[in-house]
Amino acid sequence: MEQSELLAVARGEQPADLMLRNGRIVNVLSGEIEDADIAIAGGRIAGIGPGYAAREEVDLARRYVAPGLIDAHVHIESSLCIPAQFAQAVLPRGVTTVVTDPHEIANVAGIEGIRFMAASSAGLPLSVVIMAPSCVPATAMETNGATLRAGDLAGLLGESTAHGLAEVMNFPGVIYGDDGVLDKLAAYAGRPIDGHAPALRDKLLNAYVAAGIGSEHECTTVEEAREKLARGLYILIREATNAHNLHTLLPMITEQNSRRICFCTDDRIPADLIDQGSIDYMVREAIRYGIAPVTALRMATLNAAEWFGLHDRGAIAPGRRADLIVCEDLLDLQPALVFAGGVCVAQSGELRAVPGTGQPIPAAVASSVNIRWDAVDLRIPAESDRIRVIGMIENQLVTEERMQPAAVRNGLAVAEPARDLLKMAVIDRHRGSGAQGMGFIQGIGLHRGALAGTVAHDHHNLVIIGADDASMMTAARAVAAMGGGLAVADGDAILASLALPVAGLMSDRPIAAVRAGYDALIAAAAVLGSPLHDPFMAMSFMALEVIPKLKLTDQGLVDVEQFTIVPLFVR
Amino acid sequence: MEQSELLAVARGEQPADLMLRNGRIVNVLSGEIEDADIAIAGGRIAGIGPGYAAREEVDLARRYVAPGLIDAHVHIESSLCIPAQFAQAVLPRGVTTVVTDPHEIANVAGIEGIRFMAASSAGLPLSVVIMAPSCVPATAMETNGATLRAGDLAGLLGESTAHGLAEVMNFPGVIYGDDGVLDKLAAYAGRPIDGHAPALRDKLLNAYVAAGIGSEHECTTVEEAREKLARGLYILIREATNAHNLHTLLPMITEQNSRRICFCTDDRIPADLIDQGSIDYMVREAIRYGIAPVTALRMATLNAAEWFGLHDRGAIAPGRRADLIVCEDLLDLQPALVFAGGVCVAQSGELRAVPGTGQPIPAAVASSVNIRWDAVDLRIPAESDRIRVIGMIENQLVTEERMQPAAVRNGLAVAEPARDLLKMAVIDRHRGSGAQGMGFIQGIGLHRGALAGTVAHDHHNLVIIGADDASMMTAARAVAAMGGGLAVADGDAILASLALPVAGLMSDRPIAAVRAGYDALIAAAAVLGSPLHDPFMAMSFMALEVIPKLKLTDQGLVDVEQFTIVPLFVR
Repeated sequence: MEQSELLAVARGEQPADLMLRNGRIVNVLSGEIEDADIAIAGGRIAGIGPGYAAREEVDLARRYVAPGLIDAHVHIESSLCIPAQFAQAVLPRGVTTVVTDPHEIANVAGIEGIRFMAASSAGLPLSVVIMAPSCVPATAMETNGATLRAGDLAGLLGESTAHGLAEVMNFPGVIYGDDGVLDKLAAYAGRPIDGHAPALRDKLLNAYVAAGIGSEHECTTVEEAREKLARGLYILIREATNAHNLHTLLPMITEQNSRRICFCTDDRIPADLIDQGSIDYMVREAIRYGIAPVTALRMATLNAAEWFGLHDRGAIAPGRRADLIVCEDLLDLQPALVFAGGVCVAQSGELRAVPGTGQPIPAAVASSVNIRWDAVDLRIPAESDRIRVIGMIENQLVTEERMQPAAVRNGLAVAEPARDLLKMAVIDRHRGSGAQGMGFIQGIGLHRGALAGTVAHDHHNLVIIGADDASMMTAARAVAAMGGGLAVADGDAILASLALPVAGLMSDRPIAAVRAGYDALIAAAAVLGSPLHDPFMAMSFMALEVIPKLKLTDQGLVDVEQFTIVPLFVR
Repeated sequence: MEQSELLAVARGEQPADLMLRNGRIVNVLSGEIEDADIAIAGGRIAGIGPGYAAREEVDLARRYVAPGLIDAHVHIESSLCIPAQFAQAVLPRGVTTVVTDPHEIANVAGIEGIRFMAASSAGLPLSVVIMAPSCVPATAMETNGATLRAGDLAGLLGESTAHGLAEVMNFPGVIYGDDGVLDKLAAYAGRPIDGHAPALRDKLLNAYVAAGIGSEHECTTVEEAREKLARGLYILIREATNAHNLHTLLPMITEQNSRRICFCTDDRIPADLIDQGSIDYMVREAIRYGIAPVTALRMATLNAAEWFGLHDRGAIAPGRRADLIVCEDLLDLQPALVFAGGVCVAQSGELRAVPGTGQPIPAAVASSVNIRWDAVDLRIPAESDRIRVIGMIENQLVTEERMQPAAVRNGLAVAEPARDLLKMAVIDRHRGSGAQGMGFIQGIGLHRGALAGTVAHDHHNLVIIGADDASMMTAARAVAAMGGGLAVADGDAILASLALPVAGLMSDRPIAAVRAGYDALIAAAAVLGSPLHDPFMAMSFMALEVIPKLKLTDQGLVDVEQFTIVPLFVR
């Protein structure tokens, strides 16, 4: 719609496309509830108040109408779904904008992966704002699919694919002024730059902020969050599948500081999105805790819009996008209607239409599994009788480094399920280099069989954990045969599998189907003995060499605190 | 300073340039008062907290330290001083950033005038953020010095002279989608665009906001301001010499809406700046009224920084400019120390150094008075015995249209001081066209003599008001001889004069001297009978053809409500 047409509607001289009558507007600008009609034209809010006519009218019958919710930081890939399918889950929840860091697909498919996320989001009723992944690869102690330097990231800004710079996880690089990192920050100067610096405090925090970082979503205590906010970081309170910070951090919120606080989900699996929700869940919980509803909604709307400079949304005001949610009860936010760009996209939690699905998977993000099978050898010749074992702790990303006796059979170190000692392999699946790291892990709990998958933060190589080599190979082959995904095997049998053919990370099937497939995987793992509520989530972080203490990449075992490769066998 | 050096200071590995120890930081981010040291390096805040060392230390002895104040909208020209001299007045008050609309000089000298403001502000300890004047000329019913079209304004953005678009006073042009106006808005899309739409409400307000306008400083009632804020406009509460809105609007402020409110001075004459202050005065008055000190300071700092996207200032946080004020008493803000870019520029209200003065006036803004004297003829042949008289009302910009008997002598309509009927002339001083508008005015109150000046909003032509033609010519010639300025004459005698050789608007002398000269002008006018506290301020708005009801330009009398030229004589 031409600007001049919008103005004619605003003046009341031309009919609006849609009128929402008799709503109680949650005005996040004034902080008040306002009884008024909303006139919508060309997907934007044309006017608020009496005296408008429209081609179509909806009587809100004094229900509340609030701005569409904004997820300030999410990796869509963690939903195991492409954006169109992810949108199916979050739009009915009232989330109309997500600020996403396509960090996972970038590690697999580089710039082309990011462009895929942009292209496959274009035209969706969900606004997908892409931040440029800042740390690809995470370290040099892995093989991944791409290296993104400052010039590459600047290119994304130049082509308007990226809006800002995503979580700068290399906080030592920031603080100590690593040239490559500072170049990236300089390329995004004046744009929003998200941070990621767990537990950073005091002088080093000052340096991180002074470098130009503007937000943080890794706070785990009120004290940490308050210090970071006071130093200038927007606090994005996170409630992810694998990191629950919401209830811990709610006590940090005051009427005075709340303008600098937003909500984000970071990583959520399909079951959580479907059963619990997204930002809507966080708003509900915040209000239940005692945060004033308008304040809670501000954090989920205006505050995020301000941090990211998305001034075309985040409030119900003329000229802004008509991204709106309608709900009966402000104390229990359950969107009865969701409008995105002026179109009603969901009603009573059900999506009205499923756009953007059924597209073929572009070549750049298909066929991402490239393994040199002739180099794969899961056998581990015993070099001593003591090994360095990854000690997984349920619900934590950090691990222990445990020195354990090796189980040696015929000169080979093998798994010993009786003491929960499983074999683990991480195999380069990007470059077909044959690089392969071998180790052992405790905490997964399989009595037999194996798990394999191509979701393994951040490099997303093929990771396999199992009780015997045959099961491990079966699971690995199954994953590769699907072009990436997750599988559970027992001997020669594949017990469950989920294809993730988009970069080995995402399915293009409906999120409900993905959720069902994922549930089946977990059930199969349970049959094999794993007591974990989600052994695949657990597995996906066991290869992440930036979170202490001991992790395994295709380059070998990494002592994260020493930031070096260490041998499996100890004397 | 290189970024890497700042980071080294932040980390505590290199000494800071300056430490402010034992301060009580007004943390506008958290809304709290925080006891901490501030380390400054390279003009920026490197760190906050303990453990820093520095080459120089200042013990704040538990005094408060707040961010430097931001004036969200000011015409520096109204101080009658060039930026370097204006800075002399406001820096000791704690104002370290002004967002300025060089609208006055742009009407005289066009783009070159704006560039002069930028160039003469460069290097000052006062940060001068320039907005591109959006309405030059104000209307077609005047002769001014330049026409700025969308392309010209886009050029200012391109060369980084302009930060955003200044007050879009042509609100009908916005609302009704005038192409030229929409082009200007489009050129500044995504940048801050200030508004100016007195009393605009309801649907037309919706249209104005929908067009992309983001702020308003013309509110005169709480109800108007609250509506405008709720529709999405930042409210810049104004306290100008000629428009006192502060005390009227303070009741609009709530803890919920205050984040969308800033302070501005718009137009302040030297006496007000020197005697009363600037934004510091507004903060004091707000706190005296009962606004929480941190809230009042937020309006004067962080809020303005956010509206204008000036994320390098507005708060005391690492990486931001070390623009700081130190004061003893938060309830009576009197800056004891003012730091701009980490340098102490004022102490106890006295400027420490006067930089940027003594420069020659560039040719582009000198010699701005170009009058075709042979065409000047102040006689008014009587065409009837009734005239349309401008009825000035003290302290108001609006005038009345009064139908009065003409005073006719020898076939000429003349002044008649006995009933306060003075003659008024407005003469093109830009193009030497000989254009000259003639009329009569009541309310100035001269018994004899005349006033003349080249400060006449917005075109700044030569305006003369007097009791007799001889005095008027004397005053006019005196103004022209100075290259622009203000003068009071009585017959052949010049009673007082103030040279404003920079575009006929500003002096390059110290502001105290300008104030003294201005006081002398007012005293001389009083001697001639004017009871007004400031007849020159009054006169400067009598030629402004965008504020009702009757005004005089060089094209003739303007009926502002009819938006047309009307004859002086009526039947």
